[in-house]
Amino acid sequence: MESKSKSNSNSIVVRLFGSWVSYMRRCLFRVISVGPVPSHLAFILDGNRRYARKWGLGEGMGHRAGFLSLMTLMKYCYELGVKYITIYAFSIDNFKRKPDEVQGVMDLMLEKIEGLLKEERIVNQYGVRVEFVGNLKLLSDPVRNAAEKAMRVTAHNSRAILLIAVAYTSTDEIAHAAHQSCLDKNEGVIRLADVERHMYMGVAPDPDILVRTSGETRLSNFLLWQTSSSLLSSPKALWPEMGLRHLVWLVLNFQRVQPYLETKKKKLL
Amino acid sequence: MESKSKSNSNSIVVRLFGSWVSYMRRCLFRVISVGPVPSHLAFILDGNRRYARKWGLGEGMGHRAGFLSLMTLMKYCYELGVKYITIYAFSIDNFKRKPDEVQGVMDLMLEKIEGLLKEERIVNQYGVRVEFVGNLKLLSDPVRNAAEKAMRVTAHNSRAILLIAVAYTSTDEIAHAAHQSCLDKNEGVIRLADVERHMYMGVAPDPDILVRTSGETRLSNFLLWQTSSSLLSSPKALWPEMGLRHLVWLVLNFQRVQPYLETKKKKLL
Repeated sequence: MESKSKSNSNSIVVRLFGSWVSYMRRCLFRVISVGPVPSHLAFILDGNRRYARKWGLGEGMGHRAGFLSLMTLMKYCYELGVKYITIYAFSIDNFKRKPDEVQGVMDLMLEKIEGLLKEERIVNQYGVRVEFVGNLKLLSDPVRNAAEKAMRVTAHNSRAILLIAVAYTSTDEIAHAAHQSCLDKNEGVIRLADVERHMYMGVAPDPDILVRTSGETRLSNFLLWQTSSSLLSSPKALWPEMGLRHLVWLVLNFQRVQPYLETKKKKLL
Repeated sequence: MESKSKSNSNSIVVRLFGSWVSYMRRCLFRVISVGPVPSHLAFILDGNRRYARKWGLGEGMGHRAGFLSLMTLMKYCYELGVKYITIYAFSIDNFKRKPDEVQGVMDLMLEKIEGLLKEERIVNQYGVRVEFVGNLKLLSDPVRNAAEKAMRVTAHNSRAILLIAVAYTSTDEIAHAAHQSCLDKNEGVIRLADVERHMYMGVAPDPDILVRTSGETRLSNFLLWQTSSSLLSSPKALWPEMGLRHLVWLVLNFQRVQPYLETKKKKLL
């Protein structure tokens, strides 16, 4: 009896503490939101494998830790009012990794998309639209079908948009857009706006910030066209270590340069 | 008599000191060259105007200080064995700056190109080829003519190549390459290699390092296609403050990640 009431009071303390943390976070976001809030954050989720090695976990566990980190950050972004989030889930070049690792990531992706479809009501309640961005033909049939279904059932949502780049590289996207522009006009000159319109990423405005975790400063063929005037950030943290303080720091940095960035946005001729 | 011999001995000291510095620098470069040396460095020359404001100079003087800094860095790169140097001299977007500033930069460019043509023998002795990269049609006639002449008279050099991006933006370059690829093939699919071949920058391999001075971390529509696997670096120094130590630091950083970058180079499908 005594131990039960002890665990009960413990769980009340934990819940109270949780509510207090959540309340403080929302207060912090209110204060930050006095300045401009980025509308689009893009992430290169770098460091999952290094995180696994650092803590002596299997590679699969690194990706799972990364997935948890993604969910938490998405919640924060949602609370903060960031409308678009883009993540680089799987590059075309990643298909060259060890077959069992590729299979592992594909399995994880399928599992998560199917999980998302099962929780359809929750996704719709939050108003999240999911868009898969990339050369989807390169995916295995089950993954592609699940991806297409996820896009279909969330298509009517508009409060927050999650763009997941799979089987994506920026140069592939540009070549694809060039080809489409070419089909459009057989004689005229191809202009910036034509190419832009045919980008896979055409469904969203250009990202305000591109974050690559684990201190790497390369774009790895991700959103090259779209980040010409984005703030590039490369925090030292590995992806699964990314947390609230990194997000707050990012937004504060963005607010410092935002008026300037605004004048530098890509002009379409 | 006495003052003349004093100034003579002073100038000997200065010259001896100069030779000693130059000798030490070459020794340092020898040591560095044991590791891999980047073959292509690209620079966004940011901070000329801020430098002028910092020291209470006119804006024109800032650009002139930047030009001196460029000459010095080019000499170091040449000594170190860097074959390609690309600089972002003037963006298409820069045409929107104040007319007298645009005119000032154009005048400076014309003056420097004409200076270079006058010193033709020296340029040829060092074996430097000059390439102007961008939508040259947008330049005024005198500047374009001078640029074309400079390319013509240095065309046979191959020891070092200086690429000067003028009237350039990366998105303009990509749209142009897309258009050219489109003209090439009326029916077939446009592939990465087709777009790549038609880039203005197609004359050089992709840069190993892209440097943007004055601590800014944006690409400002420069070499987006070409820097997908380049090391991005943003030293705090304003462009006219860039010196030997920054270059050495860059190269050491490059050497740390070079084996990894090598595996990430863009694969053309």
